[in-house]
Amino acid sequence: MKKIPLLLMGCGGVGRQLLHHIIACRLLHSKLGVRLRVVGVCDSKSMVAAPDAFTTELDDELLLQVCKVKSSGSSLQNLNNFGECKVFSSQDLARKVTDIATHLGKSTGMALVDCSASSETIGVLSQAVDLGCCVVLANKKPLTSSLEYYDKLVSQPRRIRHESTVGAGLPVIASINRILSSGDPIYRIVGSLSGTLGFVMSEVESGKPFSQVVNAAKSLGYTEPDPRDDLSGMDVARKALILARLLGHHINLDSVKIESLYPVEMGPDVMPVEEFLVNGLPLLDKDIKNRIDKASSSGNVLRYVCLIENSRYEVGIQELPRDSALGRLRGSDNVLEIYSRCYKTQPLVIQGAGAGNDTTAAG
Amino acid sequence: MKKIPLLLMGCGGVGRQLLHHIIACRLLHSKLGVRLRVVGVCDSKSMVAAPDAFTTELDDELLLQVCKVKSSGSSLQNLNNFGECKVFSSQDLARKVTDIATHLGKSTGMALVDCSASSETIGVLSQAVDLGCCVVLANKKPLTSSLEYYDKLVSQPRRIRHESTVGAGLPVIASINRILSSGDPIYRIVGSLSGTLGFVMSEVESGKPFSQVVNAAKSLGYTEPDPRDDLSGMDVARKALILARLLGHHINLDSVKIESLYPVEMGPDVMPVEEFLVNGLPLLDKDIKNRIDKASSSGNVLRYVCLIENSRYEVGIQELPRDSALGRLRGSDNVLEIYSRCYKTQPLVIQGAGAGNDTTAAG
Repeated sequence: MKKIPLLLMGCGGVGRQLLHHIIACRLLHSKLGVRLRVVGVCDSKSMVAAPDAFTTELDDELLLQVCKVKSSGSSLQNLNNFGECKVFSSQDLARKVTDIATHLGKSTGMALVDCSASSETIGVLSQAVDLGCCVVLANKKPLTSSLEYYDKLVSQPRRIRHESTVGAGLPVIASINRILSSGDPIYRIVGSLSGTLGFVMSEVESGKPFSQVVNAAKSLGYTEPDPRDDLSGMDVARKALILARLLGHHINLDSVKIESLYPVEMGPDVMPVEEFLVNGLPLLDKDIKNRIDKASSSGNVLRYVCLIENSRYEVGIQELPRDSALGRLRGSDNVLEIYSRCYKTQPLVIQGAGAGNDTTAAG
Repeated sequence: MKKIPLLLMGCGGVGRQLLHHIIACRLLHSKLGVRLRVVGVCDSKSMVAAPDAFTTELDDELLLQVCKVKSSGSSLQNLNNFGECKVFSSQDLARKVTDIATHLGKSTGMALVDCSASSETIGVLSQAVDLGCCVVLANKKPLTSSLEYYDKLVSQPRRIRHESTVGAGLPVIASINRILSSGDPIYRIVGSLSGTLGFVMSEVESGKPFSQVVNAAKSLGYTEPDPRDDLSGMDVARKALILARLLGHHINLDSVKIESLYPVEMGPDVMPVEEFLVNGLPLLDKDIKNRIDKASSSGNVLRYVCLIENSRYEVGIQELPRDSALGRLRGSDNVLEIYSRCYKTQPLVIQGAGAGNDTTAAG
């Protein structure tokens, strides 16, 4: 039985779901000859860690307690009923993670798993790579920071996995990696990589006003608390950057042309979210409707897509044939079309749920 | 640089393409820290092998010569201009392969790659697994033989890969394995896994007679020399069995319900292929047309699908909604819908070219 120590950063929905997954899969993992030994769990301010990372672990009961505490909105910091397991507070956090990585990296190939949405984990992650750890990311920020950090993180290709950074659990990154390492060059990727914007763009098609659809998406829990986080396109742009870098393009986020679905004068710095929803959004209805009507008159539909081709890196609204894989997309599914030498006339298409804590944790 | 010895069985279109791939990817492989060292190449009757499998290899020039000889229709056996590399004839073949596997298996993890379409490689493959080799299969036969052989071949899950047995280079096997090992149970797979039958079923939809479409498919090179090899459904049934076994179903080929698109009285034992094409096929036109019309009157289309669900294992014609992923399929693309806990209401869909030497070798 191969024991793999795991240190989890981030106890949001995805991180907690991952802990539930690990516990539920103990039997499956043992059949595969593996045991995941959780030696520490961090939130943004603190960490609960096993007393001796070499030999002890956080048991399943304790992991469930961590999940319960975090889902109630508390911080790990406020707790001290973890038996022998110690809680470290923010000032010691990075040092303690690095300590564990130093001890376990080279000897065990410890996995450092980043399920946070923070850009503050980059330092610790790139140190961990040097220390021999594997890094597993659901967090897009470390891969969309500077090229220097990116190159460091991927310097040991066998020691990094980040399937869930694009398309949640959909086999996007793995498939692209397999195509590339079979020597088949990918020259074009086009996709709908935001469940939220996919839902919005397919709903407005039936004639509903943009503002009404965005409000409905918010009520259904499809958007961030401030829907502008989705409508800005920044999340899709990060995914585009991750895919472009995976294809070997040495670019930064500022090389990605991003279309925001609201103007700067309705930005978070200018008006609060309530005002945006009530007074801002409806002002955008007419323009979107005009664009839909224009597309429709040529038999096309509008989709918010990510496009990578040669030195074009764009995320924004595109007019697409109604009967293309992207045009047929309904609801919140993601879809990705990959064009390569082997998939030239007809692309390789991967489609399915591209969001949700369950699928993201599975990825 | 990790050197991995590779012994190739089968020099048909896929095997030769694989050799071309290996040569073309030398630089890419070296970037990945790997060198594939081809120590032997077999056809059905003979093998050309490096003089000392431990230290020497067939160089790229020689591999290209092997490809040239084989694509001209000759046997490796008839050649003796391979310098120091020896040619072994059929009576020594299995013993020599086992010899090499014995020497290199445990010490190097040699890859034994089966690109043949033979059922005679099973013995050597299962021995090779015991000897510590990795086995890589494009050949479906070894995985669709008895359960005893299957269990042996997959007894070391990390030492077997068979991506190209289903959907050519499409990431089908890898994706299913990833879903399963994330603890997400798959309860239904439905797909169109024959480019030939996919082409036929989408073409007849527009009103063309079945016989005309099959003849056209043959002219386009989409079918086997005897199109009954495709129309029998046996090839799809083998793919269904491979997928079912991957999901953990302990079944044999006789558990798969197979619909043949021609009756037994038109079988290869009864009439030669020419007679089938000229006199047999047209007799089937009316029945297929009636079935299409009936489906069409309910807004449905016919597709030749593979279905795995609970204890149902079926390959045959099914009536499907025109706007489902399968119903929308045109031409020779493959498509696979995977339903699991994570992909419940909307399946994970993988679609693209599912045939061709290039994609199969890439897989």
